[in-house]
Amino acid sequence: MNITDKLLNILSQQQVIFGDALKDNYYHIWKMDEPLNALAMVFPKTTEEISRILELCNNHKQAVIVFGGRTNLVGSTETMGNEILISMEKMNQIIELDQSSRTMTVEAGVLLETIQNKASENDFLFPLNFGAKGSAQIGGIISTNAGGLRVLKYGMTRNPDGTILSSLKKIIKDNSAYDLKQLFVGSEGTLGVVTKAVLKLRETPTSRNSAFIGINTFDNVVAFLKYIDKKLAGLLSGYELIWADTYAQMTNDETGSKPPLEPKYKYYVLVESLGSQQEKERNNLIDIIEQALEKKLVEDAVVAYTKSDLDWFWKLREDVHVIASSCTYDQHFDISLPIPTIGTVLDDININLRQLDGVNHSYTFGHIADGNIHIIVDKDSDDELLKNKINDIVYSPLQALGGSVSAEHGIGLHKKPYLHLCRTEAEIFLMKKLKRTLDPNNILNPNKVIDINE
Amino acid sequence: MNITDKLLNILSQQQVIFGDALKDNYYHIWKMDEPLNALAMVFPKTTEEISRILELCNNHKQAVIVFGGRTNLVGSTETMGNEILISMEKMNQIIELDQSSRTMTVEAGVLLETIQNKASENDFLFPLNFGAKGSAQIGGIISTNAGGLRVLKYGMTRNPDGTILSSLKKIIKDNSAYDLKQLFVGSEGTLGVVTKAVLKLRETPTSRNSAFIGINTFDNVVAFLKYIDKKLAGLLSGYELIWADTYAQMTNDETGSKPPLEPKYKYYVLVESLGSQQEKERNNLIDIIEQALEKKLVEDAVVAYTKSDLDWFWKLREDVHVIASSCTYDQHFDISLPIPTIGTVLDDININLRQLDGVNHSYTFGHIADGNIHIIVDKDSDDELLKNKINDIVYSPLQALGGSVSAEHGIGLHKKPYLHLCRTEAEIFLMKKLKRTLDPNNILNPNKVIDINE
Repeated sequence: MNITDKLLNILSQQQVIFGDALKDNYYHIWKMDEPLNALAMVFPKTTEEISRILELCNNHKQAVIVFGGRTNLVGSTETMGNEILISMEKMNQIIELDQSSRTMTVEAGVLLETIQNKASENDFLFPLNFGAKGSAQIGGIISTNAGGLRVLKYGMTRNPDGTILSSLKKIIKDNSAYDLKQLFVGSEGTLGVVTKAVLKLRETPTSRNSAFIGINTFDNVVAFLKYIDKKLAGLLSGYELIWADTYAQMTNDETGSKPPLEPKYKYYVLVESLGSQQEKERNNLIDIIEQALEKKLVEDAVVAYTKSDLDWFWKLREDVHVIASSCTYDQHFDISLPIPTIGTVLDDININLRQLDGVNHSYTFGHIADGNIHIIVDKDSDDELLKNKINDIVYSPLQALGGSVSAEHGIGLHKKPYLHLCRTEAEIFLMKKLKRTLDPNNILNPNKVIDINE
Repeated sequence: MNITDKLLNILSQQQVIFGDALKDNYYHIWKMDEPLNALAMVFPKTTEEISRILELCNNHKQAVIVFGGRTNLVGSTETMGNEILISMEKMNQIIELDQSSRTMTVEAGVLLETIQNKASENDFLFPLNFGAKGSAQIGGIISTNAGGLRVLKYGMTRNPDGTILSSLKKIIKDNSAYDLKQLFVGSEGTLGVVTKAVLKLRETPTSRNSAFIGINTFDNVVAFLKYIDKKLAGLLSGYELIWADTYAQMTNDETGSKPPLEPKYKYYVLVESLGSQQEKERNNLIDIIEQALEKKLVEDAVVAYTKSDLDWFWKLREDVHVIASSCTYDQHFDISLPIPTIGTVLDDININLRQLDGVNHSYTFGHIADGNIHIIVDKDSDDELLKNKINDIVYSPLQALGGSVSAEHGIGLHKKPYLHLCRTEAEIFLMKKLKRTLDPNNILNPNKVIDINE
């Protein structure tokens, strides 16, 4: 009896597909035209079913990969062909929204957008947000500790201010021994399977103000962040930096939005404040910016007055695909660096990238308050050697500065060769030890994040 | 050659004390009159020395306990007599304050108060705060994931919004594989030794407003929290609940402060808002409270107008020792519960406690926005049987409701028998597995938190 037959002892026929039936599936949302290569895909409906599937797979030393929305950017759900794939899409129930605890309890397969909408219908905010919200599932978001916009005010997924309280509990503070959930957040399905989560909801801000700011030196980008963070005192929710070339590309005639400011500064900052008094807070924001203009911290600024201004400003920042789709071939990075080093390091990286044969251009932007920079490289071909040369240019400064090869996207398959640049030998040794302890048969997303057999 | 001699191969004579020299030391700040019972106490000055001490102790299967400020409340630093004690007091250097990264890098032995002062001198806020700040060291604070006041706005120690970025890095976002530091935060010295930390600093708020509110139902305590959190939109930094009996005791003629409100309501809430515009924000707070009075959400309120009002209000809440020192014998709890259950559960607990022979009274207060309740029981004697009966009354409702026996203080020695009430068998099994993996010889604070030999 082979393993697919045994799976049918646990699940109904509709819950197991294999062979030709796999063809309509895929391992990544950008690879929907490639037939899925795997032993089988299963669709459990309960935690108990997942537990039985894992028990079976452990007994058979059978590799498994958990499939959420498959929107990750680092090959975390790539298959080799010999895996059982656990799709979470049938575990898509919102179990409870508790008004007094201000929590939502959900199964792992619920989409981020569904959670945002449910929160919003109940006059709450679920602050986590990013482009793939219509496909990304909360289980995958937790497994990868996803970040996105508004990390500044509300934190990333791991952070209790952002999202998870506990896999099962609604209590906010719990110091009863080891906080095991922390181990699973961000482990990319290599240590366990997230099946349910209790999410923390926030009161919906009733005001939203934004401004685009032009700044000419990186020192002033940092100084203005400190200045406005202090002046806004808890309301600052976004401080997004866009480098001049990226801004020009995002606002050019062919692809982009109309430019809110003239394209003549070195840096553009998009700030956002979320609060409760729309007009008062806008006037306060205007005062703060005027003082910054007088102090020569910033060169120029434009404040959003209407909902359509806000949409215009934020569409510009959120429509990153404008950049990617203007590239012949594109290669993405999400590094992090200590904030004061970012200006000169990124200048150097961009110079080196643009001098490389095969690179057309490089575009830089980021969540600067978190030290998190995104780079999109426009290149001539998908050539492996070129890809590695580009990786080397971007990653080589990180180790000496205490940066990270992944601020948000995770390690997955694609960044594994570079993990040693931001983690010490001792750290990687301990990670392997933990992986062996929690997954002794190495069946959970094997060969992703770290190789325990090396 | 015994182990104390071998320690002298690693450390200077001034760095190792044993025998009679131990007498001037103690295992807890409240037990300074009891002679310390241990093999030796060592005072390393570097991470490398600690590493060599641990290597030696591992080779000898020699138990060690790390001594920070010894202010914990759960017996985490109690000795049996056969331990080597590692004092962190010589590792007390502030290594760097980085203005642009807004971080402070410190050795583990630096006092919380020293960190707060250094931040303040540089116009930053280190938001973590609690009574023992003049004794508690940052390493111990991290090891126990301490909370305290202002968790609502800034989070607990674990939370990047509160304190630690990484043991070694200044970057705020890092998704490069497993976040190992999370495992050590709150593990009470049973998995490793914290030697250094990078702490996140915040901009200092330039305004502080507070009000005392009288409320008669727990439903309204919850409703007013939601209401004011939404209205203050990011500025709410404290929402401390005091039950009527506690309030009366804290404001009586003998021991307490003058009462800001008449002692005739069931609950008293102390709210705090931290921001940037003292007067505007006070007026806004007054408007918000007036609307709540009109809506009958709250019964009565008084707002602080001066610095001395603020000091008066907060002294009342912070002077918990007024309660403890009014007790014949005192027994403390720091449970957490889902917020909507707190009103009736605490009513029941208090009734049951006060009916128990040997109990004089019980005093309840807490960080209600975090679901974290403190109870101080005034009792006739230190009798073990009475202590256990009191424990049973307080802890027995927790399991069914998904609460925790420790919101802040940790498990240590004293709460170990009750850990199973808030952690499943599977969780405790996994904790033991992790302990065995990271500390195979069980030398790190053995018998605290969990017993791996059971």
